[in-house]
Amino acid sequence: MIIIMSPTATRENLKKVQDKIVSMGLTYHMSKGASRTIVGVIGDKKVISSLQMKAFDGVEKTVQITEKYKLVSREFKPNDSVVNVGGVLVGGGNLAVMAGPCAVESMEQLLEAAECVKAGGANFLRGGAFKPRTSPYDFQGLAEQGLKMLKEAGEKTGLKVVTEIVDVNAVDLVCKYADVLQVGARNMQNFELLKAVGRSQKPVLLKRGLSATISEWLNAAEYILSEGNYNVILCERGIRTYETFTRNTLDLSAVAAVKELSHLPVIVDPSHGTGRWQMVRPMARAAIAAGADGLMIEVHPHPEIALSDGDQSLTPENFQSVMDEVHKIAKAMESK
Amino acid sequence: MIIIMSPTATRENLKKVQDKIVSMGLTYHMSKGASRTIVGVIGDKKVISSLQMKAFDGVEKTVQITEKYKLVSREFKPNDSVVNVGGVLVGGGNLAVMAGPCAVESMEQLLEAAECVKAGGANFLRGGAFKPRTSPYDFQGLAEQGLKMLKEAGEKTGLKVVTEIVDVNAVDLVCKYADVLQVGARNMQNFELLKAVGRSQKPVLLKRGLSATISEWLNAAEYILSEGNYNVILCERGIRTYETFTRNTLDLSAVAAVKELSHLPVIVDPSHGTGRWQMVRPMARAAIAAGADGLMIEVHPHPEIALSDGDQSLTPENFQSVMDEVHKIAKAMESK
Amino acid sequence: MIIIMSPTATRENLKKVQDKIVSMGLTYHMSKGASRTIVGVIGDKKVISSLQMKAFDGVEKTVQITEKYKLVSREFKPNDSVVNVGGVLVGGGNLAVMAGPCAVESMEQLLEAAECVKAGGANFLRGGAFKPRTSPYDFQGLAEQGLKMLKEAGEKTGLKVVTEIVDVNAVDLVCKYADVLQVGARNMQNFELLKAVGRSQKPVLLKRGLSATISEWLNAAEYILSEGNYNVILCERGIRTYETFTRNTLDLSAVAAVKELSHLPVIVDPSHGTGRWQMVRPMARAAIAAGADGLMIEVHPHPEIALSDGDQSLTPENFQSVMDEVHKIAKAMESK
Amino acid sequence: MIIIMSPTATRENLKKVQDKIVSMGLTYHMSKGASRTIVGVIGDKKVISSLQMKAFDGVEKTVQITEKYKLVSREFKPNDSVVNVGGVLVGGGNLAVMAGPCAVESMEQLLEAAECVKAGGANFLRGGAFKPRTSPYDFQGLAEQGLKMLKEAGEKTGLKVVTEIVDVNAVDLVCKYADVLQVGARNMQNFELLKAVGRSQKPVLLKRGLSATISEWLNAAEYILSEGNYNVILCERGIRTYETFTRNTLDLSAVAAVKELSHLPVIVDPSHGTGRWQMVRPMARAAIAAGADGLMIEVHPHPEIALSDGDQSLTPENFQSVMDEVHKIAKAMESK
Repeated sequence: MIIIMSPTATRENLKKVQDKIVSMGLTYHMSKGASRTIVGVIGDKKVISSLQMKAFDGVEKTVQITEKYKLVSREFKPNDSVVNVGGVLVGGGNLAVMAGPCAVESMEQLLEAAECVKAGGANFLRGGAFKPRTSPYDFQGLAEQGLKMLKEAGEKTGLKVVTEIVDVNAVDLVCKYADVLQVGARNMQNFELLKAVGRSQKPVLLKRGLSATISEWLNAAEYILSEGNYNVILCERGIRTYETFTRNTLDLSAVAAVKELSHLPVIVDPSHGTGRWQMVRPMARAAIAAGADGLMIEVHPHPEIALSDGDQSLTPENFQSVMDEVHKIAKAMESK
Repeated sequence: MIIIMSPTATRENLKKVQDKIVSMGLTYHMSKGASRTIVGVIGDKKVISSLQMKAFDGVEKTVQITEKYKLVSREFKPNDSVVNVGGVLVGGGNLAVMAGPCAVESMEQLLEAAECVKAGGANFLRGGAFKPRTSPYDFQGLAEQGLKMLKEAGEKTGLKVVTEIVDVNAVDLVCKYADVLQVGARNMQNFELLKAVGRSQKPVLLKRGLSATISEWLNAAEYILSEGNYNVILCERGIRTYETFTRNTLDLSAVAAVKELSHLPVIVDPSHGTGRWQMVRPMARAAIAAGADGLMIEVHPHPEIALSDGDQSLTPENFQSVMDEVHKIAKAMESK
Repeated sequence: MIIIMSPTATRENLKKVQDKIVSMGLTYHMSKGASRTIVGVIGDKKVISSLQMKAFDGVEKTVQITEKYKLVSREFKPNDSVVNVGGVLVGGGNLAVMAGPCAVESMEQLLEAAECVKAGGANFLRGGAFKPRTSPYDFQGLAEQGLKMLKEAGEKTGLKVVTEIVDVNAVDLVCKYADVLQVGARNMQNFELLKAVGRSQKPVLLKRGLSATISEWLNAAEYILSEGNYNVILCERGIRTYETFTRNTLDLSAVAAVKELSHLPVIVDPSHGTGRWQMVRPMARAAIAAGADGLMIEVHPHPEIALSDGDQSLTPENFQSVMDEVHKIAKAMESK
Repeated sequence: MIIIMSPTATRENLKKVQDKIVSMGLTYHMSKGASRTIVGVIGDKKVISSLQMKAFDGVEKTVQITEKYKLVSREFKPNDSVVNVGGVLVGGGNLAVMAGPCAVESMEQLLEAAECVKAGGANFLRGGAFKPRTSPYDFQGLAEQGLKMLKEAGEKTGLKVVTEIVDVNAVDLVCKYADVLQVGARNMQNFELLKAVGRSQKPVLLKRGLSATISEWLNAAEYILSEGNYNVILCERGIRTYETFTRNTLDLSAVAAVKELSHLPVIVDPSHGTGRWQMVRPMARAAIAAGADGLMIEVHPHPEIALSDGDQSLTPENFQSVMDEVHKIAKAMESK
């Protein structure tokens, strides 16, 4: 931590700051500039991060030098992590494609979707059995019945199943049916849920929060790893900005940022990221070109009768054609 | 809902849209403009809100006319709600002041804080026993031990106790010790937690999410009311913007918006809203002048040794002086 | 400037950084932490601010310690500035109220507005003769004809005239008719215009840009002062966020921030800041309670026939009643 | 325009709304829903867009159905526009690569940069002679001397020259030396400048404003086209969000949006878009995969001694290698 003293700080102000640092078992380094004195704090990262120095008189501002996360950082583990989901690898040059309907509605709908995404080259079936919805009056999902359908559809088609978990008490239940536990954007900082999925050994797909910084996202992942579960896949799904033409602003530079800061695999969800099915195609291509390890795409056999997010779901035909283009980009990326 | 057809939409496109509307038991109204046909959908609000019309060919965009929330709306209940917390009223012209440390650290610290906020005119003691922290390595709170201290300090000083709940399984536990259950910003869309506090009958303080729209905030409150708990107090605590000088951007126009759209009382937290103790004073005054029903302010006997958020905590002396100014503004507001 | 070296930086990387600093006539201070070496750069502020250190291998990040602006800073001039507009003072405890229609439409409309805002306690008449509009097809203002009307209405009512300037070539023209030159939000970083109004000696009202940080805003003011014109009044008018209920998010904490960082007076425009006439009242009160030196409010004799921004304009009756409340808050502020 | 009446609106309120519509020469369509009456306004787009209906009592909100821009819309011109810059085509499947230093610093620097970007496959040389800088104390460019160098370097290497114009009075001057006039992000709504470049016949590169919506961006382009200059190239360069790891958030979905809404070519600037040279590579690839017609990239022979934006400039070696990857993606796109 760097502490910048105000130009009007007194010697006594500075003395109190120094005493505090020493009292915490830390040391410091002084640097006098033209108008301001700067104090560099040296020592244990966790102790430093607990300092509340702006509360001291004469302190103008403080600057954190290092991030608080550790296990997720590339500094800690330089090589890319590969998450093994029952034999299907995510990361390390493997293209993970998770596709399916927003919500599980019926066995027929799900199976039809599963077969078409399988045909299009997906290796994961996605679908929500528990839906976190803005309004209490919106469709909330089929719960355990939906989980059973997912498992059955996954087994019939040979697809791994990824589904959202919204309740800390449902970890065991969801683990019975799913191959990957998805923590949604609205729960990215539901720390109790993060700890609970961290205590399971299932792979976790952690979506970025609606307005989470990259640092907060990696700290959220750190909660999971710090409980002993290293099988974490990150998923960029658009952030909230002032732009209203798209539902969210898909932040593909976050893919590059995660690759720089962390060893974890990262995929992209262009369906939620844009909220418009017409935009899934170009953004799916762009995500792969940006270096993403995979995609999560909403596909519904009949989007116009979907119970949720039909507006952003692809038809089976469109999904097939999007995947053709994605594979061309993926091939171009291999040869780079 | 208003459906705007694209200028290139065919008769067949339009026909499918109309058929869908009718098949849902709704009716429609047509309006042909210079370049676009507009379809107004009429009927049950819940059915309309489930329509996914952008998935239809030929649909350019859709516009939602009414909000999904009902119980929280002023349309549903025109008069201001007053929440009774064991005899202390929030809303309806009563000034609620909730003050205390960010986190409960020890009985001494808490009691010292409680006595000074009582002296300054607070009627609620705030303090966290469970702290949702960005990093797993930051101080996470004293848990039940902290709750016990809160209860004891509240009883000794005659202050009502408000504390954050972060775990759906801890509702009964927190209800044993607290007078108001606080749902924090990061959990504003933790719908399982909203339902759980909705099933209790304790008053709930619902903070606005970091990037929640006013509509999403009111829908979150609707989750609580729809479970039968009408004792909800809203709390504006700053939203996330591009500005970095302040920790968040305190959105005081949200106070005016809530007063227009809802009957629920709303208070303001200038401590989290700005993240700088120097700014608590002007923003506390401004909040009351904007029409807020109260304030939530962090006060720590010794901010420079606080285990969390010392940077934004007032000393007892400053709190006293801020309250003097707040009372002058409150008095000016009465006479308006 | 603080330079944080990457944990993988080599001695050679560090050497090149040090050499660069020395070659610029600056000195440095080294501080070795647990994982990273930190280099503090000392010397002339302008030279330091020109360093591009992130371009060097082994540099993880750089942190700017001081702001680039100087003349506008409270460090440079500790006492509040008071801008004298032909005898009417802005700042220093004087309440400046600038009111009138968004656009000048006719002499009748303007005079009616001027008389009513005068009666309500305004000391400035505002009105646009040149309107910067999002679309080229919207009403662009009456140009010089509008300026003449403003001058006449100002003289008849004894109000000072404030009007927007959008063209670097129109400085002399606008100076002939107006008492204060307004630089609008869209032109806050039109540096040629800032320099031009800086070369005039007219007082300048500088609105904050739609997404300008406080630092950028003060740097924009610095452009004006650095040309020799110290008569600058700042105006907060709402920033762009994700919230759509209001046209912009009025950032009243910016008032407190400006008071801390600068000596310049600052007023608030709740009309543009909210975009809803119903919200002007609470936000005008809150602005004064936050410490603003004045208000800019849109008033139109007949908002429903206004050629621009009728949605956010007050009727004369509402303006009068808003001012009554504002004066009560202003009085409460005096006695603090 | 759709006008949504409040549930408490009276018959008289409605009558006044209807009368206003008729008095403007427009007609209307009524639709009574369960709780609200909706009025659809029909007639001339420009007249409708001038209506200020929220100022009327009983009006809850209004919804604009159509965009105000016309000439830039795909509705107006369904086929992609191709801008011919002295024989070099932008749009229509041609890859435009504009590269060079942020600012022109000397003939040697510029020529070295020009030769290397030419070798890497660029067809345009970019470089600033007039630099809009946040602080008045930063390097402001070499002015006409810089323009001359650009022209000379362009002629020597066979590259077209693109350079920023910041002053409405400098159009003739810049036209003498440059092939494309760049309007920068900070001037996107400097309407006087837009009109001035619209009156010239030079191709214009219009960067998206820091917080401009896609609609505002296209309206800004409309200003240029409406003056008779149809040679407009759009450039996405990152928008301002809460994320601080990157300088801006590059919004690649804007590329897809522009392709849907407009016929104009659009390129992407990953250098300003990210502010980090390490991210230019993945974002350049992603931009092309998203469907962009080209790239604008900062290249400096020696980024560590650049006078501006060295932090985001590529070395010649890196540029060459980025272009190799970009060409692979471009080839994959052709075959789609």
